[in-house]
Amino acid sequence: MILEAQESVCAALEAVDGAGKFKEDAWTRPGGGGGISRVLQDGAVFEKAGVNISVVYGVMPPEAYRAAKAAADDQKPGPVPFFAAGISSVLHPKNPFAPTLHFNYRYFETDAPKDTPGAPRQWWFGGGTDLTPAYVFEEDVKHFHSIQKKACDKFDPSFYPRFKKWCDDYFYIKHRGERRGLGGIFFDDLNDYDQEMLLSFATECANSVVPAYIPIIEKRKDTPFNESQKAWQQLRRGRYVEFNLVYDRGTTFGLKTGGRIESILVSLPLSARWEYDHEAVTYNRGSFSLYDIQKPEEGSEEWKLLDACINPKEWI
Amino acid sequence: MILEAQESVCAALEAVDGAGKFKEDAWTRPGGGGGISRVLQDGAVFEKAGVNISVVYGVMPPEAYRAAKAAADDQKPGPVPFFAAGISSVLHPKNPFAPTLHFNYRYFETDAPKDTPGAPRQWWFGGGTDLTPAYVFEEDVKHFHSIQKKACDKFDPSFYPRFKKWCDDYFYIKHRGERRGLGGIFFDDLNDYDQEMLLSFATECANSVVPAYIPIIEKRKDTPFNESQKAWQQLRRGRYVEFNLVYDRGTTFGLKTGGRIESILVSLPLSARWEYDHEAVTYNRGSFSLYDIQKPEEGSEEWKLLDACINPKEWI
Repeated sequence: MILEAQESVCAALEAVDGAGKFKEDAWTRPGGGGGISRVLQDGAVFEKAGVNISVVYGVMPPEAYRAAKAAADDQKPGPVPFFAAGISSVLHPKNPFAPTLHFNYRYFETDAPKDTPGAPRQWWFGGGTDLTPAYVFEEDVKHFHSIQKKACDKFDPSFYPRFKKWCDDYFYIKHRGERRGLGGIFFDDLNDYDQEMLLSFATECANSVVPAYIPIIEKRKDTPFNESQKAWQQLRRGRYVEFNLVYDRGTTFGLKTGGRIESILVSLPLSARWEYDHEAVTYNRGSFSLYDIQKPEEGSEEWKLLDACINPKEWI
Repeated sequence: MILEAQESVCAALEAVDGAGKFKEDAWTRPGGGGGISRVLQDGAVFEKAGVNISVVYGVMPPEAYRAAKAAADDQKPGPVPFFAAGISSVLHPKNPFAPTLHFNYRYFETDAPKDTPGAPRQWWFGGGTDLTPAYVFEEDVKHFHSIQKKACDKFDPSFYPRFKKWCDDYFYIKHRGERRGLGGIFFDDLNDYDQEMLLSFATECANSVVPAYIPIIEKRKDTPFNESQKAWQQLRRGRYVEFNLVYDRGTTFGLKTGGRIESILVSLPLSARWEYDHEAVTYNRGSFSLYDIQKPEEGSEEWKLLDACINPKEWI
């Protein structure tokens, strides 16, 4: 499933990019397992697009187990044998009107801890697909969310509302009081359904990436933009980096299990900026005011994005 | 002390920059206290230079206390009343041959936890000054370290070797296996000396920033550079962001106590890049090969920096 998903997503991305080609690295993990990283960098449409699959297993330290498992209630003692398989991807387009997309679907299994023989084996699914634009086009966001809902509804009518909210809650940059983007679906520790059913569901979600995202890219990839709009995109990418390095559990888990750094951090944008937010002064840089970018004026296009990140909306 | 240090450092930086001026924000913290942030952005020499002072007090949640205190052995239960005063600064020049400087000196005091009346009050000093170049000029690094040693030696001959090593250990980017830069001095939880003596020591260290750093900036600010050297600086800035958001205790503490975000994250560079490290392929972007930048050839100037970040040296 993960190999097929990687193949179909990469083919669709290369087709829409036109110029860039994915380069592939296969790697193995000293502790057990390996993966295939495919990265398209500096294409015509995409600044950086990474689609990674991995199958890893081994023994993880207790801190890594805590990072891997969302719920904090059943902390296990001692090292835990584990198996994990998944696909993860972050796509950063160049055009500031074309949104960033992230998706990630994974299966996790842990054996009983070594010091508790006979304890039950655990398994769970996790994942999600979410959209992070620098500018809001309502029709794009509605289209994106409706494809997520369609995938969810095939399995359980409770999935979309539940996983949509979970996504809004998860991608929260607490110190900013805003979400990373405009959401999508997210779930974790999911094991209260039939295992086969959940695998089909994760597969359906992965297969929905192309129809959810590619039409938006087709529509926005060539929209003309100015220097100020590009700068706003770079500031929003700074927020993306903040979320991923400070809060993201996948990144945390990867860094703690001694994962392959380049694959884990491929989610970071090619470039990002942090301007100091100077409340008291407006100063100019070239043709646009940074002040306007930092603190968007109410009603502006930048303000609309910020407002939607602060107050999550029901898009459909 | 902290007001004077802020004043003298900012004056020296404005003089060397020539064009940029510091803008000042005063702010108050809802939970108690406040500070003064001074930021020079997009000057002639400095891309972003921030010098912040703050005096804050209030009650901190247990997680924040754990982040504030380096040693993990004496975890207190319940919320802890605290007082903290300090100066912190990060200076990012534009020229890739001019190094980034960070310094930070702070005093911390906690009352007994509310549920343990009568328990002793605790206090400690922490801080350090460290240098992060993208290129190694041995004479610069020796000059920088010798000024740190001079400040230390005025108080105790054991300080420099001990705090130099502490600095190398602290600024370690574990997932990269390298240090953020070429070190300097760092100490924390320091309270096993006379309180007045430690205040004088921290003051001496803060006063050493100008003589340690400004001569290096004078020497390197106008060195001609090419696109490839600028790209290497941007990649090293990406490592700076990684350290600060993933490991730095000051950042962690600030985010957890609901500090002023813009002041905490002023340490981040104006811009940074993350290129995917593609081991299998060399590809070109404009006139230089990114592959050469990512994996510097042994003996190259970029390799020398990396080598010094991986294997800390005794500079003096």
